[in-house]
Formats: sequence, structure tokens, C-alpha cells
Amino acid sequence: MSEQVKYTVIPGGVTAPQGFLAAGIAAEVRKKGCRDLALLYSETPAAAAGLFTQNYVKAAPVLVSQEHLANGSAQAVVVNSGIANACTGEQGLADAKKMAQLTADALAVAPEDVIVASTGVIGEYLPMDKIEKGIKNAASLLSRDGGMFAAEAILTTDTTTKEFAVKLNIGGKEVVIGGMAKGSGMIHPNMATMLAFITTDANVEHNALNQALRWAVDRSFNSITVDGDMSTNDMVVMLANGQGGNDLLTEAEQEFDLFRDALLLVCTELAKMIARDGEGATKLLEVQVKGAASEEEARIIAREIAGSSLVKTALHGEDANWGRVLSAAGAAGVPFDPDKVDVYLGDLLVAAQGKAVPFDEEKAKSVLKESEVTITVDMHNGNDSGIAWGCDLSYDYVRINAHYRT
Amino acid sequence: MSEQVKYTVIPGGVTAPQGFLAAGIAAEVRKKGCRDLALLYSETPAAAAGLFTQNYVKAAPVLVSQEHLANGSAQAVVVNSGIANACTGEQGLADAKKMAQLTADALAVAPEDVIVASTGVIGEYLPMDKIEKGIKNAASLLSRDGGMFAAEAILTTDTTTKEFAVKLNIGGKEVVIGGMAKGSGMIHPNMATMLAFITTDANVEHNALNQALRWAVDRSFNSITVDGDMSTNDMVVMLANGQGGNDLLTEAEQEFDLFRDALLLVCTELAKMIARDGEGATKLLEVQVKGAASEEEARIIAREIAGSSLVKTALHGEDANWGRVLSAAGAAGVPFDPDKVDVYLGDLLVAAQGKAVPFDEEKAKSVLKESEVTITVDMHNGNDSGIAWGCDLSYDYVRINAHYRT
Repeated sequence: MSEQVKYTVIPGGVTAPQGFLAAGIAAEVRKKGCRDLALLYSETPAAAAGLFTQNYVKAAPVLVSQEHLANGSAQAVVVNSGIANACTGEQGLADAKKMAQLTADALAVAPEDVIVASTGVIGEYLPMDKIEKGIKNAASLLSRDGGMFAAEAILTTDTTTKEFAVKLNIGGKEVVIGGMAKGSGMIHPNMATMLAFITTDANVEHNALNQALRWAVDRSFNSITVDGDMSTNDMVVMLANGQGGNDLLTEAEQEFDLFRDALLLVCTELAKMIARDGEGATKLLEVQVKGAASEEEARIIAREIAGSSLVKTALHGEDANWGRVLSAAGAAGVPFDPDKVDVYLGDLLVAAQGKAVPFDEEKAKSVLKESEVTITVDMHNGNDSGIAWGCDLSYDYVRINAHYRT
Repeated sequence: MSEQVKYTVIPGGVTAPQGFLAAGIAAEVRKKGCRDLALLYSETPAAAAGLFTQNYVKAAPVLVSQEHLANGSAQAVVVNSGIANACTGEQGLADAKKMAQLTADALAVAPEDVIVASTGVIGEYLPMDKIEKGIKNAASLLSRDGGMFAAEAILTTDTTTKEFAVKLNIGGKEVVIGGMAKGSGMIHPNMATMLAFITTDANVEHNALNQALRWAVDRSFNSITVDGDMSTNDMVVMLANGQGGNDLLTEAEQEFDLFRDALLLVCTELAKMIARDGEGATKLLEVQVKGAASEEEARIIAREIAGSSLVKTALHGEDANWGRVLSAAGAAGVPFDPDKVDVYLGDLLVAAQGKAVPFDEEKAKSVLKESEVTITVDMHNGNDSGIAWGCDLSYDYVRINAHYRT
């Protein structure tokens, strides 16, 4: 991020920007009494961009939303949790389209301007009668306070809601970027089961929005890993409704970088909340790779380390097993000279030039006991850096996932 | 495998073929009283071939053994468990060379004809005084009965020794192929912490041996996965000493395929033993992908499914969560039409054309309760097949790996 970045963190999420309303209600798709249907609405049409799972098995709502985003605009997002509407064939597609149509009807917008998302169990059909009632109910409850209920309704095995917002000045106008996300299991580079919805009242040209989102997602949501699995349902969708009143922001404007950096902050904070709340996780792991030949190589190595089961279990056991860090780095597919590499736990040097150095085991323990642990790997192979986030692998990950469906 | 394959499974491992002697002794590198140093010796020089880890961080013994295999021959293998001699710089390289030299001295062979392997903790130096005593001790104990002690001495967190041998006829002569392996954690395609040593008394031309080994390893050791981590120390090395007395076998001979298939059987059985004995594993998972566009695509998809943390935890929980199987298939990077795919648990069809089909949950439970579970995925996209093996992900995997080093 550049030095000149000037933005202020503010409370709230998707309804922090002007002109966005939301609701989150219990439609009884997931389990009785728990919020499981979210609706997000922009009072005016918004420029929209999205990124979707790269899994070849794409859930019906992913296919429908990709189609609906083709025109570069959207005005509403409807999300259910509990059932993923994945591996559901023609019926699933029809159901996802119906969700868009029902939302369009309730909000008097075009169905093509509705983004549909689902998360939950694969292979089951949506209970469309409950979805229909839920959408009508949610539409009647839309409000700016509804953002936090929407953030709750998109969760599955997550233990906390994930919201973040910042304000900044673009062209002399104060604009806001806000977001909500869900994660938990199946989190891995390239949009693993993860939903994130970002809103802004900034007036942003569609291509600029698209570019900024791709750039930010690659450095945030695509740099977290929980268990290496990539889901059928992931998406990050962003809406920009222009109600902040700034002159249209394009990539050519100087302030585009400011906007992009603020968006990266929102995406990074949401991504870290996802990693920290990984299934069974007790610690957030941040892996910083420095001195790499390129930013991309640095990120690839950082992700491999953050995703290594052996690094994750050592972290859980608070064991300063730096050899696993180096071994994971070497498995990333990026050539480097291991005899140049230094490894740090927090600020503590634990390996230098690829070899053990004497270090204070007690100090290492105290670093590893923290709820946030940073591992830094200096490749001494260039000037570029990259970061990835993950979590420890615990008994609870196994417990949660051994009986998810039943 | 071709229909004409004719071979017989016989007891034993690396000393089942003629002219091979072995020993496995306690050198106190690992822990007091447990066998941790193995020596394997061919009474006559042998053609040799090897495959090594693709990790960019290669342990010293890997680098030394690659160099020693360059001439295509070898006569002895020395292995220690307990310390991996990885991330040990110049000192580690000197120690690995010393191990070869000490073995050469003890057996009166050239140091270039000694293969060196280590497995265990990364980043620690070998206690060379103990190694030296151990090699002398082992050399004095070499025998045909020593194969099983060698198989024990190469283990780390493995719970059982892994040996397999077959006999077959080549050119009217009875020849034997035998092997031993160690696995447990860090097992993943491309030679993850895994050592395997294969011997044969067949007379095999060096290039033919090399080709046969590559072909067999790709379909066996490279198709197992325990935790997705690739180690610094893996190797598969094969020695062929020709004492069986057959005419030199080259790739041009008809019987080359017979030899290759027998070698594949040895490698496959050893690989399955490794998967079944994965850290914390309670079940062996076999994933068969059929109807793929190519054998390679089938194997890539099979490996992705076998390696998915979510499939592995569902297997541990005996949960018929076929959606995770399909989702893992879609994450393998191989394009296919999910609406054509059928999924079976054992013989039970659980998803057809990418969608749920009603199935007997009790029957599914009974399939999943077995100690060996086969998942079959029919892509309906071609005529090729591939198999991969893995295991379930249990609480014990976490327990074993959370405190490995300490």
C-alpha cells in the first residue's frame, strides 16, 4: 500500500455507504430460528463487478450471478445459507433464477440486476416455498440497520459476523466502502467457500471497479487458506452506486490508487476475519515472504506455507518447527536457493541461511502462544514481498467436518 | 495391467531377491533402543535408478544420492531415521558424504556406489559418532534375514513395517522383485516424505530399469496422499544385481512389460501400505476415476479427491457426503461437465449425472464403516482410468503433528 493512503475505519458493513439497505431473516432453510436469508439493496442502480469460484463444479447461483453481472450493473443481492444449491442440475438452475425473480418482484428491479448466492450443504434442493416467503419478509424489513443482520444470515459454521468499513475522500467528496463476508471451512486461494459482498457509494466507472476488485481480491481473499479445499459456491461481488456524488472515478484518475488501496484494506480485514475464524482455528497465522524475485512468487510461497498441514499442526502445538516452514516453501513450485533463506517467528530469528541458529525456545513458545502469529521468510532473492493468512489445524477442525452433513 | 501378468507374491522384502543382504540396528540417533539405521548391500554391483523429491529444499542425502546415481550403478544403501539431515548446509552435505564413505569402507565398495537416505526432524545435525559406530555394527550383521530389521529401522511415526515381494519368470529364469518403504506423514504426490527401496535379482539394462521405475512410481507412490505436504527427503531407489541369470532385459524385449507390471504391483502394494498407515489414519481410501479423457487426467482428479481435507474428514466421520467428492473433482484443474458425473461409495450409486439420487443411508454407512473404502467417480468423458490412495483425517493426525518436534 502506498504511503499517502488516507482513510478512516468506521463501524458497519454493507450498509455503511449511502443508499444501501439490508435485511437478514430466519427463513428456516438452515435450522429453526437462525437467520439464513440475507437481502442487500441499493436504492439506485449500481455499477457491479464480481469474481467467482474456479471450481469446474459451479453451483447454480454462481452460474446465474455470472450471467447477471455480464451487463456490469446490479441493484440487489439475495443470499441463503444452509443449502448450497450445488450439484442440483436443471432444477437448481431454475431455483436460482426463481430466487432472482422473486427478489426482483419484491424490490421492483430487473431480475438481471439481482445477484444470487447460496452456501451450505451440496446436493440438496432449496425449499422454494420457504425461500419465497423469506424474500418477501426480508424485502419488507430492509433498513440501514439491517446490515448486521444480513452479515449474520450469510454464515454457516462461522462463529462470528464479519463486517468492515472505511471512509475516504475522492474528488473532495466523502465516500464509504463497506463489506461483509462468510468463510469458515473450504477456504483456499481462488475463492474457496467464501462469500463477500462489498458496497460503496463512490461513483466508479465499471471497468475501474472491475480492475480494483481483481487487484484487491488477489492480495486478500485469494491469499487466505483454511483447508486447501476450493468450493463450488464462492463469490466476491461489489456494488458501487455513486451516491457519494464524486465525479466518475476511472483508472486514469490519480485517486484511483487511493480507492484501490482502501478497497484492499476492506478486503484484507474481511479475509483475515475469515482465516481467524477458520473451522476449529484458535490462531490467526500471517505469513510474510520478503526478498522474493516478484510479488507473485512471494504470494505463492506465502500461501503454500500458510496452507501446509504440517505448519498448521505445529502452530496448533506451539512447536517452533521452522524446518516445516522451509520445507513448505520449497514445495511451492518456485525455484530458490534454500541456503539463502532466513526464517523468523515474530521477531525471533529461528533459521538463517537455511540452517538452524540457536534461539531462545522460551521466547519462541511465547510468540507461538499468541492468538496472532507472524512467520516471516526472507528469501534474499529480490525486493518483492507477499502476504498470506491461515490458521492452525486443530482437533476441532476434524470434529466439525467429520459430521457436517449428518 | 495386462492380462498375461504372471507373478507370485512371496514373503519378504529387499532381501527376497538373490544376492541382497541387509541389517537394521539401533544406533541411538532416534531414541534409545529403537532400530534407526539400515544397511542394504548387494553382493555384486547393481544397475540402479532413483527418483527424488521435487521440493526445492532438498536434504543433503538427496543431493549426495542424486550425484551417486549419476553413473547408473550402486551396491549399497545406508539409511538413518530420527534426523532428516535437511536444512543443514555445508555441514549436512559433509555428513551425508561421510555416511557414504563410512559405508564404502565397511563394505569395500566405492563411495559413489553408496546411496544415502535420512528421515526425521529437519534442521538438526547428525550425531556422526553414533552413525559411524552404527554403520560398522550394521555391516557386521548383514544377512538375508536382515531385510525385516532394515524395514523397521527406516520407520519414523509409522506403526508397521512395509515390505512386499513377488517372483516371476523372465527369459525362463525365476527372478524376484522385493521392496521396503516408510511413510506416515508428509505423504503427497511427487515423492513426499517417503522412502522406498526396491531390489531385484533380474538382469535389467540401466535405461530399462529407469523407465520401468518412473512408470511404476507415477502410478503408485506418486498417487498417494496423506496430508498434502511434500518433504525434503523423499526418494525411491531401485537396485538390479542380475543374479537371477536372465539375459539382459531391455525395453525392446516383450517381457519388459511383464517386469514393469510386476514392479508396479510391488510399488502399489507398498504405496497402499503407506496410505493405510498415514499419520492418525483409521481407513485406507481408494479413489477410482473412470471414463476420463486420459489416464493422466484421471489420476489428477483421483489425487485431488484423495487429498481433500473435507473428503478425508467426512470419511473419518463415515458421512456419505458425495458433494465434497464432486467439489474436490472440480477443483483439480481439469475441465469436465459436472452434469455427466456419477459417484459411487463402494458399489452404491450416491450421485448420478452430477445430482443427488436417493440411496440407502444405512448401506452407505456400512460401506464407510469398513477399513478400506473405495470411491468411484465415472466422468463419462472418455475411456481412461486412474487410481489414487489416501486415508481419513483424524484427531490423531493433529495430535501426532502438533508436537512432533518437542
